[in-house]
Amino acid sequence: MWPTLQNDTFLRACLRQPTDYTPIWLMRQAGRYLPEYKATRARAGSFMGLATNVDFATEVTLQPLERFPLDAAILFSDILTVPDAMGLGLSFAEGEGPRFATKVRDEAAVDKLAVPDMAKLRYVFDAVSSIRKALDGRVPLIGFSGSPWTLACYMVEGAGSDDYRAVKTLMYARPDLMHRILAINADAVAAYLNAQIDAGAQAVMVFDSWGGVLADAAFRTFSLAYTQRVLARLQREKDGQRVPAIVFTKGGGQWLEAIADIGADVVGLDWTTDLGAARRRVGDRVALQGNLDPMALFGPPQAVQAEAIAALDSFGRGDGHIFNLGHGISQFTPPEHVAALVEAVHSHSRRLHQM
Amino acid sequence: MWPTLQNDTFLRACLRQPTDYTPIWLMRQAGRYLPEYKATRARAGSFMGLATNVDFATEVTLQPLERFPLDAAILFSDILTVPDAMGLGLSFAEGEGPRFATKVRDEAAVDKLAVPDMAKLRYVFDAVSSIRKALDGRVPLIGFSGSPWTLACYMVEGAGSDDYRAVKTLMYARPDLMHRILAINADAVAAYLNAQIDAGAQAVMVFDSWGGVLADAAFRTFSLAYTQRVLARLQREKDGQRVPAIVFTKGGGQWLEAIADIGADVVGLDWTTDLGAARRRVGDRVALQGNLDPMALFGPPQAVQAEAIAALDSFGRGDGHIFNLGHGISQFTPPEHVAALVEAVHSHSRRLHQM
Repeated sequence: MWPTLQNDTFLRACLRQPTDYTPIWLMRQAGRYLPEYKATRARAGSFMGLATNVDFATEVTLQPLERFPLDAAILFSDILTVPDAMGLGLSFAEGEGPRFATKVRDEAAVDKLAVPDMAKLRYVFDAVSSIRKALDGRVPLIGFSGSPWTLACYMVEGAGSDDYRAVKTLMYARPDLMHRILAINADAVAAYLNAQIDAGAQAVMVFDSWGGVLADAAFRTFSLAYTQRVLARLQREKDGQRVPAIVFTKGGGQWLEAIADIGADVVGLDWTTDLGAARRRVGDRVALQGNLDPMALFGPPQAVQAEAIAALDSFGRGDGHIFNLGHGISQFTPPEHVAALVEAVHSHSRRLHQM
Repeated sequence: MWPTLQNDTFLRACLRQPTDYTPIWLMRQAGRYLPEYKATRARAGSFMGLATNVDFATEVTLQPLERFPLDAAILFSDILTVPDAMGLGLSFAEGEGPRFATKVRDEAAVDKLAVPDMAKLRYVFDAVSSIRKALDGRVPLIGFSGSPWTLACYMVEGAGSDDYRAVKTLMYARPDLMHRILAINADAVAAYLNAQIDAGAQAVMVFDSWGGVLADAAFRTFSLAYTQRVLARLQREKDGQRVPAIVFTKGGGQWLEAIADIGADVVGLDWTTDLGAARRRVGDRVALQGNLDPMALFGPPQAVQAEAIAALDSFGRGDGHIFNLGHGISQFTPPEHVAALVEAVHSHSRRLHQM
């Protein structure tokens, strides 16, 4: 059905199989730091106009691959499509972050929540199929979703937050309601990712962007347990191929052992964790993805390359590493610094793999 | 010279000496969640009007002690007084954070930096002496400063930041300039804290509020090394008494062992770290301070008390724990929940200490 995959380095690294070099892709690699992205976005009129249009989403997903020899593509979409499909009314005001018309802050609001009809998210699955076809087997396509906890943060806060006061107030005052929201989110996210896999996604990633704002015990109870529930419901094989699952918790460095235990193939690291230390902690169980500080790309190209080499050397020889940033790329990043990064990762890791 | 100290529980806990119960104080305990603070602030006209007036600073420092049986007082001031004294022009716009008129972003700006004349900070030292006198020996007084790195963040960014792009760009592109800034900051902070100790501070705390935004290697090089330089220059005894030094790195949970090695008596923990696990990692070397999620105070009093008891139980029996929040108290916190917290910490820890 699909074109033969020509570069399976990313998928092999996810499964800790031997590769010739360390694959690299970048969180938010299709984005505002690329002038061609801005041009498409201008034609689309708005962020959601871009994300909901199959042709536009396909176009911008492939743009970074035209510039850089990246080893994976990631669906262009937003982590908040699922709560939007729940009827909460997602919008993006210019120059601000996402915003929901309806906030879920009391029992009546929780009573109205349900796993949404996946037909409402068909624009996403159509985009996945369109991108997979357009990729023509060059590199694998990654699908993704926000984690149940991260979605809950936005659903309760109604927007981004500095202190997560609303969602934490609900969590500390009415843990029963929080558990109901999270159970619905987990089942919705699992259905959403399974539909992406059916549509052609060759790996899936769960972004727990806000897991790191939780206290230790709360993280395990309200974030990790529900990401685990998602993973338990995922189809892990498609067309005879393993579909790797990646879990990324921003600020999750203290919980690597626990995160590595919930059934993911790959654990994503933010830039605060030393790769070599992380490998010693969990590298016998999962592959690791990360973790250059996105701000390191603001140094001159030589400094970018030195940072990349230091990260590769910290991981060391052997397989099971997917190079990435520790968070999404900044919109102000000079694209030529990205080129320098990709080149350094490929060439230095080839040397490490030949040693 | 000073009145006899009646409650030395906090100081003893800092030095891991036996106490009858676990002492508690709260970061930003003198602040906007208290109506009496708001009244004084209104009389002062502005935040800096409050912080630079000895009588007002004394008044608000003592306010939380009138409400709650806290075991320490902390100087009412701001972490940015030192760069202000360097001539960078600190201001607080209403409803916004701090802002500097001058940003330190290039070599010419760094050339102009120097350790400020401590006479410019006399209003702080006068406040310390005034507060110590007003406390009349009830509880010890803690002095404080921002860490060299945290001060540098504000000096380069000119304000708070979401991504620390300016300061990290300087760090990655011109590490030589960053080291020059940090060396000046470290020597200024040491002089500043030593003058606070001379003025009557019985313990000092270094707030590395933004250390946690750094990559692992960068944290060690650009934050921790300069906090260590501060500690090495501190007077650690005054009037025959040890002056405990507390280091608090927000987001520093991954680096506890390293932080415990730089010569602090106490390591402050944010709420993401489990207290018991932290004690197992470094509790034989330093006392621990923390670490309730400030948002836990938005649960009902019973839930607040359950969270406090869980934290105390996680630390376990024995000495070397100072209860605190994992970050500053929110301005929206109900004061009666603070009362419930203090009561639970005192009563439950007395039981633990008698076991």
